[in-house]
Amino acid sequence: MPHISETASGVYVIAVTPFTDQGAIDSASLDSMVDFYLDKGATGLTLLGMMGEAPKLTAAESLAIVKQVLGRVSGRVPVVVGVSAPGFAPLKELSDQVMDAGASGVMIAPPSSLRTDDQIYAYFETAAAMLGDIPFVLQDYPLATGVQISASVILRVVRNLPSCVMLKHEDWPGLNKIGALRAASDRGETRRISILCGNGGVFLPEELSRGADGAMTGFAYPEMMVDVCKAHAAGDVERAHDLFDAYLPLARYELQPGLGLQIRKHILAKRGVIASAALRAPAGRLSTSDIGDIERLIERQERRLAALA
Amino acid sequence: MPHISETASGVYVIAVTPFTDQGAIDSASLDSMVDFYLDKGATGLTLLGMMGEAPKLTAAESLAIVKQVLGRVSGRVPVVVGVSAPGFAPLKELSDQVMDAGASGVMIAPPSSLRTDDQIYAYFETAAAMLGDIPFVLQDYPLATGVQISASVILRVVRNLPSCVMLKHEDWPGLNKIGALRAASDRGETRRISILCGNGGVFLPEELSRGADGAMTGFAYPEMMVDVCKAHAAGDVERAHDLFDAYLPLARYELQPGLGLQIRKHILAKRGVIASAALRAPAGRLSTSDIGDIERLIERQERRLAALA
Amino acid sequence: MPHISETASGVYVIAVTPFTDQGAIDSASLDSMVDFYLDKGATGLTLLGMMGEAPKLTAAESLAIVKQVLGRVSGRVPVVVGVSAPGFAPLKELSDQVMDAGASGVMIAPPSSLRTDDQIYAYFETAAAMLGDIPFVLQDYPLATGVQISASVILRVVRNLPSCVMLKHEDWPGLNKIGALRAASDRGETRRISILCGNGGVFLPEELSRGADGAMTGFAYPEMMVDVCKAHAAGDVERAHDLFDAYLPLARYELQPGLGLQIRKHILAKRGVIASAALRAPAGRLSTSDIGDIERLIERQERRLAALA
Amino acid sequence: MPHISETASGVYVIAVTPFTDQGAIDSASLDSMVDFYLDKGATGLTLLGMMGEAPKLTAAESLAIVKQVLGRVSGRVPVVVGVSAPGFAPLKELSDQVMDAGASGVMIAPPSSLRTDDQIYAYFETAAAMLGDIPFVLQDYPLATGVQISASVILRVVRNLPSCVMLKHEDWPGLNKIGALRAASDRGETRRISILCGNGGVFLPEELSRGADGAMTGFAYPEMMVDVCKAHAAGDVERAHDLFDAYLPLARYELQPGLGLQIRKHILAKRGVIASAALRAPAGRLSTSDIGDIERLIERQERRLAALA
Repeated sequence: MPHISETASGVYVIAVTPFTDQGAIDSASLDSMVDFYLDKGATGLTLLGMMGEAPKLTAAESLAIVKQVLGRVSGRVPVVVGVSAPGFAPLKELSDQVMDAGASGVMIAPPSSLRTDDQIYAYFETAAAMLGDIPFVLQDYPLATGVQISASVILRVVRNLPSCVMLKHEDWPGLNKIGALRAASDRGETRRISILCGNGGVFLPEELSRGADGAMTGFAYPEMMVDVCKAHAAGDVERAHDLFDAYLPLARYELQPGLGLQIRKHILAKRGVIASAALRAPAGRLSTSDIGDIERLIERQERRLAALA
Repeated sequence: MPHISETASGVYVIAVTPFTDQGAIDSASLDSMVDFYLDKGATGLTLLGMMGEAPKLTAAESLAIVKQVLGRVSGRVPVVVGVSAPGFAPLKELSDQVMDAGASGVMIAPPSSLRTDDQIYAYFETAAAMLGDIPFVLQDYPLATGVQISASVILRVVRNLPSCVMLKHEDWPGLNKIGALRAASDRGETRRISILCGNGGVFLPEELSRGADGAMTGFAYPEMMVDVCKAHAAGDVERAHDLFDAYLPLARYELQPGLGLQIRKHILAKRGVIASAALRAPAGRLSTSDIGDIERLIERQERRLAALA
Repeated sequence: MPHISETASGVYVIAVTPFTDQGAIDSASLDSMVDFYLDKGATGLTLLGMMGEAPKLTAAESLAIVKQVLGRVSGRVPVVVGVSAPGFAPLKELSDQVMDAGASGVMIAPPSSLRTDDQIYAYFETAAAMLGDIPFVLQDYPLATGVQISASVILRVVRNLPSCVMLKHEDWPGLNKIGALRAASDRGETRRISILCGNGGVFLPEELSRGADGAMTGFAYPEMMVDVCKAHAAGDVERAHDLFDAYLPLARYELQPGLGLQIRKHILAKRGVIASAALRAPAGRLSTSDIGDIERLIERQERRLAALA
Repeated sequence: MPHISETASGVYVIAVTPFTDQGAIDSASLDSMVDFYLDKGATGLTLLGMMGEAPKLTAAESLAIVKQVLGRVSGRVPVVVGVSAPGFAPLKELSDQVMDAGASGVMIAPPSSLRTDDQIYAYFETAAAMLGDIPFVLQDYPLATGVQISASVILRVVRNLPSCVMLKHEDWPGLNKIGALRAASDRGETRRISILCGNGGVFLPEELSRGADGAMTGFAYPEMMVDVCKAHAAGDVERAHDLFDAYLPLARYELQPGLGLQIRKHILAKRGVIASAALRAPAGRLSTSDIGDIERLIERQERRLAALA
């Protein structure tokens, strides 16, 4: 599979990591999950992201998961691997290993200690130097990392570090940041890199209108992202909103920090994608009321989608 | 107007502070805003909250706004005043002044330096001792304050500080916290205090199902909160969700940190509630694209509401 | 008294705010404190800083303190007033009031919500525009504010905002930041502003060697800062270190976040400078062991100073 | 070597990780460093702490370092290994590996996302359950982790988790926390665990007076900690302070966040303990002025120590 590039678009699904109830990696579910995502129209996969419970995996487990997924995908779509780590040695080690195994690129979120513009830029400069020609995705997710990256810092990265080919955009609010990045490339000041959006997809139609190339997020109904992107690409913005609105109540519910992954895995298990909704410890648990909410929201969503069809 | 108590319910609208384009307080708009909120069914008003630009006001301006609103409200609904301050002397001074002027209670958010359970509890214990018998609302808003208040700390406050009569709940996720507080009072372990929910109302139906008594937030369509609460109180949970869903795309859009108040004021100005959408400096500005998004979302909302009527 | 300027040097003592045991402002101690600081060689005073318990004062109290001190100082040294506030309206109001009363300048620390370089610069740009020609001190104290200000942001402020005439430097570590600022003015790239150092004085000799103009801090023995600055200015760097080392064990002990002010006031009360060591609530209290430590450190310090004399 | 226990005392030196100028692990220096620490009187060693650049090592490198040091130490003193990690799987994996290799215990700092008392306690409860009977050191270092652990949370850990046998105390200020923990065990409410203190040793005499059992820190002159502990244990508190004061100016200088390790390694290289002062990237660099400061402080320290001998 070729490396990811500035032209990447569509929906890169942030994959969960399926575990058994006992906390072991569930290989069978890993395969069925890959099949499900591709079947729903994913144009790429992203492994070992924050919602992939990456920090709970040993180095060996992380690599094994990547290899299995790459085998199952078998070159049909590019696979990006999250390699964020507190230090550069483990970051580089995992990056080299996954690229050797056939991954198409890596994704890097800045460590939470960074504050000033120069500190943030220097971090990515060092990372890029270490990774050589491995293409990387800059993950801009202040709510999780605590690091606020201004548009000018991203533009400095784009200008100086050619291996940065994609932005995983999940600043909040971030619509005008997309606009600023697109304006800079429109004026010819920088390359135009790929921008895929996260945040559970809850701003997707507006993000596409500002110039995003698609989504990179893991909402339990990836068909939402796929269908919204398709309608938008076809020029039917109102249709994109109609579809989006049908899923929004559940997408909003899934986007609860610290509980969202439990909700996502619950739905994926209910849909038969993975065998168990279990997270590895430490992890909070859904209450009976949470599950009741999810049930209601799914029912309502199905009625809405039926009306739209 | 009597003081607020544990039995408070319904919709306390978080009022904006209207300014002229030059940054002066717009008294005429202050009156029309009060009229609008009461006309839409508010059961209370909350002044000088975070979304009321309280830190941008001088002490004299703050008091003048409170007095004018109290005059306009004229006892029809209770008025709560945000008095959060870095120190207790200005907090107590403002509290005494607004209660003398006829307010029904005050609201306190913890300063962002607090971390441990004991630090948080001690803060509210000192505040309550200083305020004497002034009833207060504990504002639990970790996204803005950085202070995480566990259910057990809130229960300790409720047990020991009788002047705490209400929780402004805007933890995220927070549904199970509401559940824990209600379970404690159901078991007779604590008083049952009023819980009104914030966060722009984007979890309102679920919060009501968990035992919240209503909303305290400032979404530019307060009729959403009023109608959802009414439908829910009437037992028609599906209708509450139908109404909620119609407003959700815009409510979600308004809930953008750092830009949300600009959106809210833009809509209120467009609705004729206030004369100018201006914020006092420092304040970011809506882009043309932002305004285009809002226009589209309002149009779509109106179509949805028409279909529901 | 003329305004402060880029040429300010020496020791601006950060004044405490003396309270009675009941929490009232102790006017008599305010006078004796001013006399003490001037008697020990202060070349300026700074009121209402973080260690002046500014957030615990009402607006009226703050102004009354400033006026009394200005009267007592009677033009002998410049007086700077801390005016940091969550919003610009109270910042401007207090600034105008104290300048009208005869203060020589104001000091501003950035609010803790700022992160990116542009956000920090924009804050000071707005502040400077609001303050007009009032000269201001930029307080750079990341440990307390959480805001990290890079040398390049300070240089941008110095280049563009002529009313910024002084840096209160208390980054940690910050020696190379002083070096970077001095190198820029030596190369003629910016004005050379005054740099006075905080952090309880525990890096004072090294800071002077890097180009600082003196100290702005409140260690309970201001004669330390005065004598170290004098020896250093006279070219006797070893003597400056000898004096510094004699005080360092106690200065280090005083520099405990959250307890340092209690220690400082305890010593000032013991020295007869203020009548009571009381802080306004909320405030932790010294333990018997803390007081024992202080007694021992003072005794040892006196022996060391006697040997140096 | 037996496991560490509640009775541990003396000086556990936080070891640096020596690198070559090219960033490879310097095995020869690792041996000479071990010899140096033991020769200076260390009663234990702690590897892979924050100042051991642990996050910059791959998993394989970490284990190799531990094995080499264990071989060199050859059972003469206990070796503790820092195993802090964002997730429990890598934490457990490294813990099992190093204990199998002969380590005497592990050290765990809480991840920076923890806030409430219950979250912090739950983290250590899960860690202890995963580690089984491996004895662990609770590292309490708020300045680096951002996590504030109250004395009551530590006491809850001590009461409920018998495998917690030691506290690495580096809260600041923390003297009264030591007092609170000792008072609790004196009253028979909890076990009395070992307390070794960090923070570069800059509060060591006072910490010993409050009941600490020694130091766990890496100041480039470990003889300071050893000699201060010995004098204090012999009842000569003034002598302990005399020794401490001689080293304090340099210890204070070394304790600069983000630059301290460069200073420490510079001195260790100068003393011939390690071949190169190099840190692995990313790392700031000492300026010429920094090195000048260090030279001066060492000279002054030597004169002071000579006078004391």
